[in-house]
Amino acid sequence: MTNADEAALLFVNEAFYLAFQTHDMRAMDALWSDHHPVQCIHPGWPPLFGREAVMESWLRILSNRAAPTVTFSHPVANPLGEFGLVTCYERVADNSLVATNMFHRSGREWRIIHHQSSPAPEPDEREAPRAPRQRLQ
Amino acid sequence: MTNADEAALLFVNEAFYLAFQTHDMRAMDALWSDHHPVQCIHPGWPPLFGREAVMESWLRILSNRAAPTVTFSHPVANPLGEFGLVTCYERVADNSLVATNMFHRSGREWRIIHHQSSPAPEPDEREAPRAPRQRLQ
Repeated sequence: MTNADEAALLFVNEAFYLAFQTHDMRAMDALWSDHHPVQCIHPGWPPLFGREAVMESWLRILSNRAAPTVTFSHPVANPLGEFGLVTCYERVADNSLVATNMFHRSGREWRIIHHQSSPAPEPDEREAPRAPRQRLQ
Repeated sequence: MTNADEAALLFVNEAFYLAFQTHDMRAMDALWSDHHPVQCIHPGWPPLFGREAVMESWLRILSNRAAPTVTFSHPVANPLGEFGLVTCYERVADNSLVATNMFHRSGREWRIIHHQSSPAPEPDEREAPRAPRQRLQ
């Protein structure tokens, strides 16, 4: 069950970055929850609350065809029942960032509730990514 | 119910910053969940996973008596059943930051699962803080 949740969380996290990379506003919109209030903190932006403000920000970001592509790496899923967190590194041009994405499961679908991305040191390539559960031992 | 949850989330969020401000490692330790895997992203740090790594980081931070005091403002609670988010501004010396704190309710107690703090523009003082729910309307 938990392994399935981890896999589902990693999958929807990947879908989020795919929508981001392909400037797919429709997919991005569909990925965000319309059940719970959503919130989003882009690097250096004030926090945005509510679907309208958050979608407006994504439209602005995804409309910018000149923007450098974002890639992600080192995702770590933290399943919490009907909710779940995925923390991963992001790379935008030469900048290393770390993001937390929070998801809610509605039926069989996971939808985003919260995204926060902020500057981070380069990921430590010597260390393989491990799930939080394993790190607790 | 939701108003009570909002109040409880704002209260525990304040307790977190009180522990931070008073360098109270014992209170900080008690505030973090020992039920769910925890994770923490300090500004400019790599993400930390698991209680051991997270508490080690707080011990290091709270042991530094010369560190400037952190204050918080503009908290916005987002209750999500047994979970909840509080997003607020932080101020450390001249730096404006924005933090997301995620809590889990265990019995009547709310405990922290996730903290991420990152650089932000100054809060807009013209705008009163409002709950995400209200912003959705």
